[in-house]
Amino acid sequence: MIQETYDKARVVNFSDAVFSIVMTLLILEVGVPSIATLNKLSFGAVLANRIPDFIGLVVSFLVSALYWIGHIKLMKFVSVVTGKLLWINIFFLLTIVLLPFSTAMYVNGFDYPGPFMFYCINLAVIGAFNLIMTRYVYYSENKKTGFIRVLYRWYRARAINVLIIWVLAALCTLVFPMFARMIFVFLFVVQFLIDRRFKKKMTLVE
Amino acid sequence: MIQETYDKARVVNFSDAVFSIVMTLLILEVGVPSIATLNKLSFGAVLANRIPDFIGLVVSFLVSALYWIGHIKLMKFVSVVTGKLLWINIFFLLTIVLLPFSTAMYVNGFDYPGPFMFYCINLAVIGAFNLIMTRYVYYSENKKTGFIRVLYRWYRARAINVLIIWVLAALCTLVFPMFARMIFVFLFVVQFLIDRRFKKKMTLVE
Amino acid sequence: MIQETYDKARVVNFSDAVFSIVMTLLILEVGVPSIATLNKLSFGAVLANRIPDFIGLVVSFLVSALYWIGHIKLMKFVSVVTGKLLWINIFFLLTIVLLPFSTAMYVNGFDYPGPFMFYCINLAVIGAFNLIMTRYVYYSENKKTGFIRVLYRWYRARAINVLIIWVLAALCTLVFPMFARMIFVFLFVVQFLIDRRFKKKMTLVE
Amino acid sequence: MIQETYDKARVVNFSDAVFSIVMTLLILEVGVPSIATLNKLSFGAVLANRIPDFIGLVVSFLVSALYWIGHIKLMKFVSVVTGKLLWINIFFLLTIVLLPFSTAMYVNGFDYPGPFMFYCINLAVIGAFNLIMTRYVYYSENKKTGFIRVLYRWYRARAINVLIIWVLAALCTLVFPMFARMIFVFLFVVQFLIDRRFKKKMTLVE
Repeated sequence: MIQETYDKARVVNFSDAVFSIVMTLLILEVGVPSIATLNKLSFGAVLANRIPDFIGLVVSFLVSALYWIGHIKLMKFVSVVTGKLLWINIFFLLTIVLLPFSTAMYVNGFDYPGPFMFYCINLAVIGAFNLIMTRYVYYSENKKTGFIRVLYRWYRARAINVLIIWVLAALCTLVFPMFARMIFVFLFVVQFLIDRRFKKKMTLVE
Repeated sequence: MIQETYDKARVVNFSDAVFSIVMTLLILEVGVPSIATLNKLSFGAVLANRIPDFIGLVVSFLVSALYWIGHIKLMKFVSVVTGKLLWINIFFLLTIVLLPFSTAMYVNGFDYPGPFMFYCINLAVIGAFNLIMTRYVYYSENKKTGFIRVLYRWYRARAINVLIIWVLAALCTLVFPMFARMIFVFLFVVQFLIDRRFKKKMTLVE
Repeated sequence: MIQETYDKARVVNFSDAVFSIVMTLLILEVGVPSIATLNKLSFGAVLANRIPDFIGLVVSFLVSALYWIGHIKLMKFVSVVTGKLLWINIFFLLTIVLLPFSTAMYVNGFDYPGPFMFYCINLAVIGAFNLIMTRYVYYSENKKTGFIRVLYRWYRARAINVLIIWVLAALCTLVFPMFARMIFVFLFVVQFLIDRRFKKKMTLVE
Repeated sequence: MIQETYDKARVVNFSDAVFSIVMTLLILEVGVPSIATLNKLSFGAVLANRIPDFIGLVVSFLVSALYWIGHIKLMKFVSVVTGKLLWINIFFLLTIVLLPFSTAMYVNGFDYPGPFMFYCINLAVIGAFNLIMTRYVYYSENKKTGFIRVLYRWYRARAINVLIIWVLAALCTLVFPMFARMIFVFLFVVQFLIDRRFKKKMTLVE
């Protein structure tokens, strides 16, 4: 049996390009106030109306950055891009591409549960593909590239963290709407705790 | 006679950039529901109205990904980018760039035959340039880079598959509109069969 | 005296990225017909209304491609990116970035002389920076990188060709509007003649 | 303790991509005149109405280019991308991404103080992250990569220059609105003086 492999540099460049375009397009969804609006409202009010837009932009930008960093870390351990990894990566990027839409919809319907749930599910699905990719790389590379068990468990913990937080946020939104919108902060807190724990473990391994 | 040659890395990077921008821009054509719409309709209805948009996005994204993967495979066998290859690639990218437009038009006029035919023809023309490029690389590289006959026939079969499927879809749309919209599924089925057949052939060659 | 130099790979990647984004954004300026338009007009009429858009897209795409190819050729002879070259390149890219705007304005006001003149002047200014960059590279690299006199004269002839054609088109638009819109075809014809002449010269040099 | 490090090439490519997309998106904010506008107004008037747009485009493009050049210079001295540097860079890019929005808002409300102050603050915050990044690289690399004290002071002077100019412009806008809009010219003048002074110093060092 022959296995087709793909140019890793192109796959990585392509992924970086998609991330950078998505993260930059987020700003296009923030409506620029027209001259009519600026005439009618005070500038403070104009900015206040855009608070949901800025929250959406910053959260989506930072969460995308987290996924991008995870991608950099994982790809370091990939020796060969197989057809399977390529397609997992393509579906991962497809869900990333949805982000400017789901961010803008969530921001427009800031007080509604539906758009926020859609946004959370979008982020959770990205997280699911991230988890699948992490698993795939660990088992296919089979520790040959230095992706040792403790590192795998570390990256898996991070991936599961993101996934759980967004599923939780989606579930909470019907019962505790304001709390649901704050949950993403735990993403960074829990990741900080995960990182501390695994850094300790790594020192023991060495 | 001197032959001008071009920096392959730049041509490849440029192509990757165009693919990634086109595939990301597809999301910009999905209309974000305004607050007025969210007030009036249930969120389920809002999403249901966007089903054609999501179908268009996913089909165009995945078909673009197929063409991109084909580009990666083909470029592996290119030792030197000649002026001719450069221009074939530029026309190939020009037709790729049309995709966000033809996708959005097809999605807006989901029930009309015209926009869908335009969409199919766009994809078929991309396929035609893909086929031309495959042929050109095979004959100009003349097997020096490992692009052996059986591989060429494999890639050509894939390229012809895409081309035929979209021409068929364009033709069917007037007679069997719903069937025409489903034909693209065969793209993946037929490609699976082609791949299985040629993988067997490749093993015999080795 | 110390001379600051810059990472050539980054400057080249950045330029490629700007070119690819500009060439892809051109499609965003082609208005997608709404469902209302598709209901009212025949699909043939819908497409016919977009003929100026497609002309604008194709001309701008191909002329940008010409400038991009020129950039690839020129950069091959750059050993070191000086501050001066960096800034010439930045102004060159600034005028490239204007292209989606001037194309869209020309297309909207297809029958007016003003927008077309603006478009031609935009393209002529890009050509002027191209010429300046070609001169700068020739004199600063001083033939050390193989940028011999005959090659320089070849590239300069191409750069002057583009510049003259667009200045001519701008001037003609008031007197022979339709002819002015066709002049760009000469771009490719004259370049073909230039290439043939200098290819002969190059053979004599070798 | 282990320190996580990141693929420098990907971080640099990603940053270049964000810069190039932001600088190209600036043109999307310049409104293309409709056929109705072109019918009603003379072409001179159409262009005159866009003078603020062109000023905004050119200033934002050139200031972004300055930051990008600073990024190239700084990254040359980075041997290893640590998690901290990665996150400083991500926040730096987040503020860059805001630029098309703040430029468009400033241009729409050209005669109002608020939008211009927002624009200046945006640019000053970019400058602040630039300064933080410069400091971080100097102290973490600890001169190992040739980032000597005099060079650090040079780059810091440039970073502080940009920061001060934009804070000053923000402050001036309430008292001397027209002068505030001109201050950015000093950016280039003061930088020229800084460069001359430090080039002299560098010669003494060698």
